[in-house]
Amino acid sequence: MERVNVLDFTTGKLELTTSVQERYLSDLIDYFAFKNEAEMILREKNPLIYKVYEMAYSGPGALSYAITEIEPGKVGNEYYFTKGHFHSKAAAEVYIVLSGEGILMMENRSGNTRTLNMFKGAVLYVDPEYAHRSINTGNEKLVFLAVYQSDAGHDYESIKERGFSYIVVDEEGPKIVKNPRSTKK
Amino acid sequence: MERVNVLDFTTGKLELTTSVQERYLSDLIDYFAFKNEAEMILREKNPLIYKVYEMAYSGPGALSYAITEIEPGKVGNEYYFTKGHFHSKAAAEVYIVLSGEGILMMENRSGNTRTLNMFKGAVLYVDPEYAHRSINTGNEKLVFLAVYQSDAGHDYESIKERGFSYIVVDEEGPKIVKNPRSTKK
Repeated sequence: MERVNVLDFTTGKLELTTSVQERYLSDLIDYFAFKNEAEMILREKNPLIYKVYEMAYSGPGALSYAITEIEPGKVGNEYYFTKGHFHSKAAAEVYIVLSGEGILMMENRSGNTRTLNMFKGAVLYVDPEYAHRSINTGNEKLVFLAVYQSDAGHDYESIKERGFSYIVVDEEGPKIVKNPRSTKK
Repeated sequence: MERVNVLDFTTGKLELTTSVQERYLSDLIDYFAFKNEAEMILREKNPLIYKVYEMAYSGPGALSYAITEIEPGKVGNEYYFTKGHFHSKAAAEVYIVLSGEGILMMENRSGNTRTLNMFKGAVLYVDPEYAHRSINTGNEKLVFLAVYQSDAGHDYESIKERGFSYIVVDEEGPKIVKNPRSTKK
């Protein structure tokens, strides 16, 4: 028998991965709404924001999957998140949340926004045409498995340039508010 | 917030589904290796072999997902299984096993066979070009989540006609043996 990959549903650990990406605050300086606060933090330290453990396959019809672990924390009162991206072609994703609490923020190129709660056991459908960002609003890691087409591609630039229309901040708990840095009308 | 789907990792229950399919022995009479034994059972009862709870999405780039629950049991000494199919186009699947024990049997159109163990936490990659069948070799339900491209399509006929080259039988435990009904050279 061939070796199979194993996922620990409690810890989110995958036995086999083809790559591990780490994103630190310095990598996300252009994404957080409160840049001054981010720069203040960076003078002292460069905290890890999230890690992605990917198991990638290639070829026609291939799917890949990855575990994303977002640390708990905030920049100003904005919760830690993933950069967020559009896919380069229409391509959905399926997320399965293993632990933690958060919000999946989605926005299409017309500016329509959708938000979904993330919690253990939630199975979320990322719309093919929507940019998507996961936001950790809890006190522990937010851990989820994502399955997607290997050739979906990533467009990070649109998000970097204009930002999502909405962000999630801590105002005595998570609150969805207009993004002060969004350049969208 | 929109309603999200919820998966119970222990029971495999999905809160939302778009369809539920039930496959009984009478639906699988042309797939089991020991047809006489299957007909003998059918004279008295028509047991449920497996159920598929699907959450389907459509449109360009769509993915769908489903929970499959295979009952424990045998026809003759061959373990219960899913029909098995090729996809109509090159399209992978990702399986995540939630409970039970089994074997994922894969075979491509050249007759190359691959087998993978199924057990709680196993994450299995179904090759785009391979027909695939899940076989419950344990004493309880084999339950797994599958994620796949919505337009992958199903070709059951090739399997019905020629069978997989190998089957899994109980010979003091699961054993992979040549399929006596396979018409492949």
